[in-house]
Amino acid sequence: MSTTIPVKTRSRIEMVDITSSVQQEVANSGIQGGICVVYVPHTTAGITINEGADPAVCQDILNKLNELVPAGRGYLHMEGNADSHIKASLMGSSVTLIVENSKLLLGTWQKIFFCEFDGPRSRRVYVKVA
Amino acid sequence: MSTTIPVKTRSRIEMVDITSSVQQEVANSGIQGGICVVYVPHTTAGITINEGADPAVCQDILNKLNELVPAGRGYLHMEGNADSHIKASLMGSSVTLIVENSKLLLGTWQKIFFCEFDGPRSRRVYVKVA
Amino acid sequence: MSTTIPVKTRSRIEMVDITSSVQQEVANSGIQGGICVVYVPHTTAGITINEGADPAVCQDILNKLNELVPAGRGYLHMEGNADSHIKASLMGSSVTLIVENSKLLLGTWQKIFFCEFDGPRSRRVYVKVA
Repeated sequence: MSTTIPVKTRSRIEMVDITSSVQQEVANSGIQGGICVVYVPHTTAGITINEGADPAVCQDILNKLNELVPAGRGYLHMEGNADSHIKASLMGSSVTLIVENSKLLLGTWQKIFFCEFDGPRSRRVYVKVA
Repeated sequence: MSTTIPVKTRSRIEMVDITSSVQQEVANSGIQGGICVVYVPHTTAGITINEGADPAVCQDILNKLNELVPAGRGYLHMEGNADSHIKASLMGSSVTLIVENSKLLLGTWQKIFFCEFDGPRSRRVYVKVA
Repeated sequence: MSTTIPVKTRSRIEMVDITSSVQQEVANSGIQGGICVVYVPHTTAGITINEGADPAVCQDILNKLNELVPAGRGYLHMEGNADSHIKASLMGSSVTLIVENSKLLLGTWQKIFFCEFDGPRSRRVYVKVA
């Protein structure tokens, strides 16, 4: 079975560190070694793994995405969030991690970030450990 | 065992909804819960998950990729499809999904899109449910 | 258990073909059919699958990433490698492959590339076959 992590976002575009919630789901699964898939069921949000120590890294990622894919200019999709859909595909809708000794095998500086591109909203992420 | 889905593309750059074919392979596998990997064995095509309700979303994604990575300008690779290779790496060569009750655990608006970047061609996608 | 592949990089930005090392880990695992996750535990490096026959393809990918996300201009992160973090998220931190008959199910032209974005460094990649 997969489990669900709720994510509350507060800005139109934002990265939310969900690492400890994912780690908790891995522990709850009782699985000691395997693979963990973290899946975003939204089309205007994505997910990525990057540095969590300095929040400026996330801000730089978001600023660059806004520069490459600015909001509200000349898109065909009429809901005002075409840029959000494009950003979501650039980041991707899932990350896959390795589980060992009931823990995510993350690098020293790595954190898992939910990427909100059309917030603020109530979002969710699915976690499957296998 | 993995299975193969054939994909026929009709333009140089195009997104083809393969969701129902992937869902059929999941059903055929007989696996009720697990992970589904959809893998593109080509280097000038990719795969992504995004909104399927309004075709303008896919067109906006393709237009932006063409703007950021235009065809035919000053690349080193001499086959005329350097942009196709770059677009493929930006989208990625696989997506990983969660399977529950013999179904893909997709969000309401999500569809799986094969991304052709050097068509038209006869392509294929591998599906593995585990 | 997962295994570790060491990767030595020689430039600030570089793509290193690690396909044969990953294939060796798949063979060593003894697993005949399944899924292989190749995971990068760094935040200034990524991983992608693309063409290996003509090295110009990798150079074109790196040139385009440098054009879209140039080094050293107006980022908030003060360590001089903000661009490296952004490039890492654009490529992604893992690839997932299908294993069949104890071999990676790769397309004819596909190779797996470790993407260094802040080298030269001693890096590593984790491989899990399940």
